[in-house]
Amino acid sequence: MIEFIDLSQEKPYQVFKDSYEHALENKQSAIDAISISSYNPELSEVESRFVNLKYIVNDEWIFFSNYASAKSKSFKMHPQISAVIYWKKTNTQIRIKAKIFKTAEKFSNKHFESRSTEKNALAISSNQSQIIESFENIKTKYLETLNNKDLLQTRPSYWGGYSFRPYSFEFWTGDKFRLNKRSLYIKNKDNWDYYLLEP
Amino acid sequence: MIEFIDLSQEKPYQVFKDSYEHALENKQSAIDAISISSYNPELSEVESRFVNLKYIVNDEWIFFSNYASAKSKSFKMHPQISAVIYWKKTNTQIRIKAKIFKTAEKFSNKHFESRSTEKNALAISSNQSQIIESFENIKTKYLETLNNKDLLQTRPSYWGGYSFRPYSFEFWTGDKFRLNKRSLYIKNKDNWDYYLLEP
Repeated sequence: MIEFIDLSQEKPYQVFKDSYEHALENKQSAIDAISISSYNPELSEVESRFVNLKYIVNDEWIFFSNYASAKSKSFKMHPQISAVIYWKKTNTQIRIKAKIFKTAEKFSNKHFESRSTEKNALAISSNQSQIIESFENIKTKYLETLNNKDLLQTRPSYWGGYSFRPYSFEFWTGDKFRLNKRSLYIKNKDNWDYYLLEP
Repeated sequence: MIEFIDLSQEKPYQVFKDSYEHALENKQSAIDAISISSYNPELSEVESRFVNLKYIVNDEWIFFSNYASAKSKSFKMHPQISAVIYWKKTNTQIRIKAKIFKTAEKFSNKHFESRSTEKNALAISSNQSQIIESFENIKTKYLETLNNKDLLQTRPSYWGGYSFRPYSFEFWTGDKFRLNKRSLYIKNKDNWDYYLLEP
């Protein structure tokens, strides 16, 4: 589930909300799964991974990550990303382009405090995406953290939210024979330009 | 559904096949939906979209597209892409990095001939991703093409397959408290180096 807080009244946000509710009514599973793609200019490589989208606060889309992970390095070097969602139950695809930045610390603290101790222990203990010798080492490190009450009290500085603010939305709905409906919204100063696209 | 033809015997392909069959047994829907992300160096932008993965022929992963579409331009300028699949039913994510190129014409012809006339009419009639005035125009153009028997006989040169050949695979399986299992395979000449990653 995505939590909406003071959602922007701008048109593509309202279209998104309607589309989300429609998917929810149709019992779409993993409705908060979103693929985030970044570019690493040092390696000249595009990389993608699914994350759980947790919040949309006004026009900020928020998920959580380790700030020393490979994706965090790419976000820093190239703060433009793409995001894409596909909801099978309604045959809807939402394509986004956005600028990404770290979420305000206060918000990350609040979210950290709302999570289970078990999840937070992993956020603290893991050097996300580093190569390891064995899965057993990970488990040992995890269990040690879980037993360290002091460590568990505070959000570590290397873990928190990423916020992205879209400047382009495409809403795609599949239709028979691929006569798909495609609507594009592009941010133009304070407005959103609207276009229809060929299927 | 993905059609496997003479699938590579190399390790990550066999891991993929097992993972696919496991998801299929668990009745995963949209099992062939894969997010493809590309980089446009002119715009310095990452872009993503879902496509239907149709075939894996040995080590070539194949989907079909309009060759004049926005993504085709990005593939030409920057032939490295990322691909990602998420199967909710088995809580499995597969992350791929690959080089992309046009599929052999013979193969594209064969696939075009295997498709329904209704789908091919759209492949012929659509200038994919172009801005349009109204959806009615698209429908009219589509229906005109559908009635043109001559046009429908041959695959147009602007539509065909894209093949990508992975050089990196990550298999990710979600576990409780985010103690996820992550295995990385990286192509090293004719072999695949194998690593475990921190969750």
